[in-house]
Parts: sequence; structure tokens; C-alpha cells
Amino acid sequence: MKKLLLTAALLIATIYSAQKKYVLVVHGGAGTITKSTMTTEKEIAYRAKLSEALIAGYSEIHKGNTSVQAVAAAIVIMEDSPLFNAGKGAVFTHDGTNEMDASIMYGKDKSAGAIAGVHTVKNPIKAAIAVMQQSEHVMLSGVGAENFATEKGLEIVDRAYFKTEERWESLQKLLQNENSKKTSQNTVAEAYEVDQKFGTVGAVALDKHGFITAGTSTGGMTNKKWNRIGDAPIIGAGTYANSQVGISGTGWGEYFIRATAARTLAAKMEYQNKSIKIAAQETIDEIEKLGGDGGLIALDKDGNIAMPFNTAGMYRGAITEDGEIFIEIYK
Amino acid sequence: MKKLLLTAALLIATIYSAQKKYVLVVHGGAGTITKSTMTTEKEIAYRAKLSEALIAGYSEIHKGNTSVQAVAAAIVIMEDSPLFNAGKGAVFTHDGTNEMDASIMYGKDKSAGAIAGVHTVKNPIKAAIAVMQQSEHVMLSGVGAENFATEKGLEIVDRAYFKTEERWESLQKLLQNENSKKTSQNTVAEAYEVDQKFGTVGAVALDKHGFITAGTSTGGMTNKKWNRIGDAPIIGAGTYANSQVGISGTGWGEYFIRATAARTLAAKMEYQNKSIKIAAQETIDEIEKLGGDGGLIALDKDGNIAMPFNTAGMYRGAITEDGEIFIEIYK
Repeated sequence: MKKLLLTAALLIATIYSAQKKYVLVVHGGAGTITKSTMTTEKEIAYRAKLSEALIAGYSEIHKGNTSVQAVAAAIVIMEDSPLFNAGKGAVFTHDGTNEMDASIMYGKDKSAGAIAGVHTVKNPIKAAIAVMQQSEHVMLSGVGAENFATEKGLEIVDRAYFKTEERWESLQKLLQNENSKKTSQNTVAEAYEVDQKFGTVGAVALDKHGFITAGTSTGGMTNKKWNRIGDAPIIGAGTYANSQVGISGTGWGEYFIRATAARTLAAKMEYQNKSIKIAAQETIDEIEKLGGDGGLIALDKDGNIAMPFNTAGMYRGAITEDGEIFIEIYK
Repeated sequence: MKKLLLTAALLIATIYSAQKKYVLVVHGGAGTITKSTMTTEKEIAYRAKLSEALIAGYSEIHKGNTSVQAVAAAIVIMEDSPLFNAGKGAVFTHDGTNEMDASIMYGKDKSAGAIAGVHTVKNPIKAAIAVMQQSEHVMLSGVGAENFATEKGLEIVDRAYFKTEERWESLQKLLQNENSKKTSQNTVAEAYEVDQKFGTVGAVALDKHGFITAGTSTGGMTNKKWNRIGDAPIIGAGTYANSQVGISGTGWGEYFIRATAARTLAAKMEYQNKSIKIAAQETIDEIEKLGGDGGLIALDKDGNIAMPFNTAGMYRGAITEDGEIFIEIYK
């Protein structure tokens, strides 16, 4: 870990240049993340974990493995960390459960897999990959998805595994707010703490064979009800990949779905020959126009990246083909 | 009903012309629907029901109501009929349940609603509309979606309501096939009877205010497992609408998701200025290239329609602003 931190510290200073060819980009969520509300310890922890995810994914690419394996390696690191709203750090639903969604898409053949509403699968991204590779379906949900994951030999954990004190307190605070006043349409953001921390994680990788994979994993919104499904497991909304570009989103999921965010970005490149940076920024602009917020990461076949967001911050990082790491949190 | 049939019979002969302005288009599923396997009685029943759906939706538009109301009226007619794989005629899952999905999108403001995996909501499309209009979410699933529908006062029925003999026998046949031989990846189509009848229903309407709505409702695939979610409730896959065009798909859902079918069609119009007919055909071609099949209906803001499919047939119909009805089943 010490070595990782050192590597990160040394390389964070690396100038972020368009000339560099990136092979992996990750995010750990967008939201009201500001320097003033962040402790040094916490910032170091986030930077270290993002570096670890980048190095894990990079290692797969370096070995000549597929971008699917790279995305899996990077996301598993973040799912296993309580820092992010995915896997171990998933937020709580209104009913006090952790209900997780994940998806993956492989640009080579546009194969895809997704799971929604699982409570016991340790690494939801692995379940999404199993759906993609070992079923004839794209999307499974609820108990069915859990049974499928069990059948495929994925690690199943007790529901208690996902309980973290910080997330539990977030729910209690929101429940108290709900009890003390009627939540109107105007206070939706407040009721779901949507601006506080989305915390969804995602990764997009480009392997040595030239193929792109995008993946996303999340616990959704604190206090969510009615088995709500957000954009993370929706192919075309939170995740998309084709032969040209891969995208993973993080933000207010409802707006990402309505904007078909990930597909919109790819379509602007595919049909209008727009650069990844312009296509990505325009997509965030469209989400903002609808009234939503969040961010996304994108990586194209030439190794160019874009990481726009319209929130105060977004945990994000990328690594070049030479292993240079770039990490940012604030605007 | 007699009057409806007469109206339909008189108007079916109407020449399908590009000059006509259509205000509503519906489908009742694509698949292996051929003249040789169809009885006259059955064909008349399908034509009559599609006409009834068109007239119900047309009546809303004629009154100056929104395209959301028109789509709802048309789809409810088909959901309440055992002829289609939606609502009353929903197919059975592997476990012998009826598990329904639906979605709606309103082009005016890109608002959207969807429900996945409900067992007791009489009209899934109404639940999707309630999600769009009465919740801050876009997609709800399973028991949560049912609780939401109950809370909003929608009609809840006993699970037995959805049991139809024909669909039950389809499941039994597939289960017998499964028992008699191992299903390999190569016989997926056989295992799920995917080519036999998709039967998903959908509607796209253009109201007098110039706004488009698209909606889709389905029971999914016979013998589906693991709480599989298909394209019907996925915004951008089975359903999409913006200010320019609305789309509803029917077919092998996994391919429609991977092709982000509905959004792809709209993107070709939005970003490449392609006509609705070309954009629609190219979308079906992309689905076919991936290995999938099915069809879709699309209606643009000028009243142009497209209804391409790459299966043997698709139950489909449209109605002009003057109330002229056009219905087709085969190629």
C-alpha cells in the first residue's frame, strides 16, 4: 500500500496531456465533494484507492488480458472498499437494505450484462459479467439474479457484510428529515441526499487488442424505495461501449436514463464525428438542461479520455499505456 | 364491435400513402406469424383488436388529450386482450408465473416511467405512467413496483387473472423440451420460443399539441428465468421519445438492449437528419447484424411512420388524423 501511495504521489503531478494514450479511466462518484468538507486523511484514502483500482486494471491490460478483465479488476477494488457507494459501501434503501445494481458492456461485439436489485452478491460487477458471458440474457434482477450468481459460483455474503456505519447514519438522517416534514417534489434532492454523494463507481478500459469495455456498479440512492432501478444497470444510460468509445456515468440516475446518457455520447461520436471531449461535455449539458446532475468518464479507441461533470466534484482517475497515473477530485 | 370491424374492413383497403399524416401507430408483436399458420377467425380477431386499440387512442387525440393518454388507451385495450403477450395474455416464466414489464416516454419533456417484473398489476402501462407522473423515479421493479401501484390506486388483480390456457401450454411444451434434451447456446431460440411469438405490444402517438409519446408493454419471453428483464421497460432500448420521434420495439429483447434500438433510431434522425424510414430500417438491420430479430414502430412529429421488421410478420396498424385505419400482419 505504501508503495502504491508513493507511486500515486509521484505521478499525480504528471501533466494531463491530450497526447498521452490512456488505457483505463475510473470514477468513484460525482456529487458535492469540496475541499472544505474533505479531511486530508480522507482525501489520501480516496486517492490511494483510486490508484489501486487503476493499477489493478492496468495490470490486466499490461498482461494482454481483455478490457473486460481490466474493468472487473478495477471495479472490484472499489466495490470492496467502504469509500464508495458500491459493494461494501453501498447506501441503504428506505427499508434499511443494501440493493445493488451493476452492468458491463464489451465494445468488441456489443455484448452486455446487468443485474439490478441484488442484496447478497459480494461483487455485483462480477454478476453482471457472468450474465454477459454465461447467460443468454442481458439483464437479471432481484432474487433471480442472486440465484443466477449463486449457480455460477460467485461469492455470496450475508446481508450484514454491506452494512457500514456511515451509510447507515445517512439513512437515519434522511428518515428523520422525512418524519419532521412532508417531502414535496421540490425537496427530492434533499430526500435522497442526491447532491451529497452519488458514489457510484465505474471504469472504462482499452486493451491491447483495441477493444473497449465499460462497467458501472452502485448501491443507488440512499433512502430509495419501491425497488427503484437507476441508470447504472441500464445499457445506454449508465454504461455503454462500442468499437469506438466506452462510457460509465455517475449521478442522478433518473436524468441519465431520460438522456440515454452513455448512448447519446457514443451517438454524437458515431453519427456526428464529434471528439470525445465535445460529445462528453454536450451530454452532461443535456443532463443539466433536463434538471439533473452528475458526471461521466469516457475513453475512446485512440486512448483519449473525457471526464466532465456538473457537480462540485467527482472522484476520477486515469492511467496511460506507460503506467502514468492521473487522479483528480475537485473541479 | 360489429361497427368497429366494419370500419376496419372498409378502411383496410385504404392505400398506405406517405402523404397521409398519421397520429397513432400500434404493434402487437413480431415473430413467426405466417398466413399458413393463421386461421381466418384468428386473423379477424387480431385485426379487430388492433383496430379497437387504434380507435381508442385516436379518440383521445381527437378530443385534444395528450399523446400519453392516447398511448395508454391503445395499450390498455391490447393488455386486456388474451391475444397479445402483455397484461391478460402475458406468457409464463420458467416458474409458472406471469412477470410483466412496461414503459412510457413523453417526448415533450423526455419524462419517462417504467416498471419491471410485476405480477399483480392489471395494466402494467398504467403503472409505468404512474411512475412517470407521480414519482421522482423512472424505473421501479418487483414487489416495490407493485406496492407503488397499489399506493397510487391502480387496479391490482389476483395472479390467476393472467393465466390463459394457450400461454400455459406454451410453457409446458418448452419445459418438456428442456427435460428431453440439454439446451445448448445454439438452441436458445428454441428454448425460449423466441421466434414463435414475441407478442409485446406498443403504441406511439402524436397529439394535437405536437407532442409524441411512446409506450411498450410485455410479458417477456416464455420460460424466462432469473427475473430476466427485457428491452420493453428499458428507456432507449424498447421505448424512446423526444420532440422529433417516438419508437416502440418488439422482438428478441436482448438484442434490442445491446443495439439501444429505440435511441439509435432517434439518434440517426437527430444527428444525421435521416428520414424516419431510413433510420428505422437501419436500426432493424443493426439488430439483425448482431444476430437478433424483431420489429419496431416509429412515428415522427410530421406524422410519418415506419414499421420495419425482419421476422415473418408483425401485428401492426396506424391511424391517420382523418381516422383512416391501416392494419397489416404479414410481410
